Amino acid sequence: MPNNNNILIAQGGGPTNVINQSLAGIIINEKKNKSKIFGSLNGVNGIINNNFVTLNNILPDEITMLRNTPGAALGSTRDKPDQKYCEEIYNVLKKKKINKFYYIGGNDSSDSLRIISQYSKEKNYSLQCIHVPKTIDNDLVLNDHTPGFGSAAKYVAQLFSGINFDVRSLPGVYIGVVMGRHAGFLTASSSILRNKSSDGPHIILIPEFSFNIKDFITSIKSVFNKYGRCIIAVSEGIKNKNNILYSKKIQSSSEYDDHGNIQLSGSGMLGDFLANEVKNKLKISRVRADTLGYSQRCFLGSASEIDQKEAFQIGLKAVSFSNANKNSFSIGIEERKFFSKKYNPKFIVNKLIDIAGKTKIMPGKFYNSKKFDVTNDFLNYCRPLIGKKFPRTTSIV
Amino acid sequence: MPNNNNILIAQGGGPTNVINQSLAGIIINEKKNKSKIFGSLNGVNGIINNNFVTLNNILPDEITMLRNTPGAALGSTRDKPDQKYCEEIYNVLKKKKINKFYYIGGNDSSDSLRIISQYSKEKNYSLQCIHVPKTIDNDLVLNDHTPGFGSAAKYVAQLFSGINFDVRSLPGVYIGVVMGRHAGFLTASSSILRNKSSDGPHIILIPEFSFNIKDFITSIKSVFNKYGRCIIAVSEGIKNKNNILYSKKIQSSSEYDDHGNIQLSGSGMLGDFLANEVKNKLKISRVRADTLGYSQRCFLGSASEIDQKEAFQIGLKAVSFSNANKNSFSIGIEERKFFSKKYNPKFIVNKLIDIAGKTKIMPGKFYNSKKFDVTNDFLNYCRPLIGKKFPRTTSIV
Repeated sequence: MPNNNNILIAQGGGPTNVINQSLAGIIINEKKNKSKIFGSLNGVNGIINNNFVTLNNILPDEITMLRNTPGAALGSTRDKPDQKYCEEIYNVLKKKKINKFYYIGGNDSSDSLRIISQYSKEKNYSLQCIHVPKTIDNDLVLNDHTPGFGSAAKYVAQLFSGINFDVRSLPGVYIGVVMGRHAGFLTASSSILRNKSSDGPHIILIPEFSFNIKDFITSIKSVFNKYGRCIIAVSEGIKNKNNILYSKKIQSSSEYDDHGNIQLSGSGMLGDFLANEVKNKLKISRVRADTLGYSQRCFLGSASEIDQKEAFQIGLKAVSFSNANKNSFSIGIEERKFFSKKYNPKFIVNKLIDIAGKTKIMPGKFYNSKKFDVTNDFLNYCRPLIGKKFPRTTSIV
Repeated sequence: MPNNNNILIAQGGGPTNVINQSLAGIIINEKKNKSKIFGSLNGVNGIINNNFVTLNNILPDEITMLRNTPGAALGSTRDKPDQKYCEEIYNVLKKKKINKFYYIGGNDSSDSLRIISQYSKEKNYSLQCIHVPKTIDNDLVLNDHTPGFGSAAKYVAQLFSGINFDVRSLPGVYIGVVMGRHAGFLTASSSILRNKSSDGPHIILIPEFSFNIKDFITSIKSVFNKYGRCIIAVSEGIKNKNNILYSKKIQSSSEYDDHGNIQLSGSGMLGDFLANEVKNKLKISRVRADTLGYSQRCFLGSASEIDQKEAFQIGLKAVSFSNANKNSFSIGIEERKFFSKKYNPKFIVNKLIDIAGKTKIMPGKFYNSKKFDVTNDFLNYCRPLIGKKFPRTTSIV
């Protein structure tokens, strides 16, 4: 058992509904290590600004509440450290005698961690860097799925199930714009709670397959003629055949973050544009577009119980693996080969360099691009992740 | 106990999460009356188009699922019957020997019912018209609140609670646009799950008080300077000092429904406009706007358990009151005088003419227009309606 350890925890990137479960897991097991536990506020930004708290004295009741609280309790950041930034981090960590640094984040955060880890090695400073995954985008390579995804997928599935019944009541065309810059997993999860073949969403559009406005209009027309209504789940990250973001084409002023990512969420522009196209081309009067927005990653009280459990366990396991293995690593969930078997997730250790900055997209077997729909493989893959707490529903007419 | 009754049920206006609870309540108690139970599809529209189903043979398990299904199971309509339309309804109801007509709907639907009831009287045809309230807007006069509101309020409260933690993680300005054409109740419910004085929403803007862009910017600036972040809940129905809808001012092409109502939901325009104003005037880089959209009235699996219970009971009671009282009426929930007492709702009977087409707005005691915030009276009024199924949350830093 290590003794007199100084450890640091930070949270980076877009928060999730269960990111604090992982934080709680790390705190609980590092307390057992008798470590002095620091948290840096707002990710790596708090390190260079000497903005730390100690986390040893959080009471058990507070930990319980923390686990159920969405958002990053330590604050987050979009900063991406360059060499100079890494030097500053190194100076602070060395001064504070930190020898383990847990960074809970997505692929951008794991890339920050890879740079810091590399820099420390060059400086011969013993720093174990541990990446604890989270992302609602579910786009980490070598991971079956990522903590945070299941709850976001559940929210999207609940929303589209409700919309299915709402649009049955007052028919028309409904377009829901779902988060997901490069990977279509979250948009695809809009399908999970469909019961009948007539249930929406009827059309699912993901960033992995090029978007074409003509095909879009034609497919809506076909569904509308069949059912008198059409529900579409479209990813904010759809691209045209030249791989240009469709949002970019229609936005007059685009906002980019430090990673060069365009702002897609927090604006209704894409949905409004598509709705107007449908109105004008098909002369359907009731066309509505909702942009699902930030509630996808933070809606209170509806997290997937499976996701909560796994996010907590991955925090606990990150500590026990770090005790056994003194190198830097990224903890993960082993990829399943068969999706119809009993769901039984297994935690694994990946090399940072194999995860960092890489983006996983929806595999071809999960999507039928001719039908604009997900496959049974996707349904079997995704279903266990959103938990089981749903009422049974019916359409009586 | 009446015998050999033909009764008709329809659902009108915007659906809610619990409108089928009321439908189920009516079916269950009318079965005890040994009535022949018809449903017309898509509200009054199904009557004139002879589009009926019989509802006697729905199995108990189906009823259980029906109760948990959002949206109007019989379909809904935005049609508003004029005299000619009423004549057609009358002809069909007489032909079908309907002597009781339950219409589950809001104030527009109750107005349709008033016209039909009046017309039947003139024709000397014995038709009992029973209005069973539902509306997420909570804008029915002589009612403490309306079934459907509690679940929508819960959704809005859960969403803003999540946003509160999300924006603590990645600070900036967040604007959430909430449904509500004339009444601010739903927007106000964004406040219910705040714990600390620093918790958002920090600014709440409702249609009952005139909106001014200069005051809006000034108040955001003040909150942002204090907390480094600002969360705003704004009603889609905000109006300027001349009582002109703010959305109308900024929409290039406006869409109206048959009631002369402008389309406010299903577009991100208002939120995007306000976000751009904040960006340009305050030079704050991270400004996001979400338009909450249709999930407010149909999100699956998160209905308020109190709202579900009351919507079911009001259906049951509509039948028992109709057995005892042979006139037309609107069933309702008695207005509370004191909001701090134990919550104990009481069902009452109102005259159709006293409800029909009238709109209730937020009483002055529920809103502090100087602080752009709700009062404790509102919090005590609204809290029991959203139920108790929330996790406890915390901010540890």
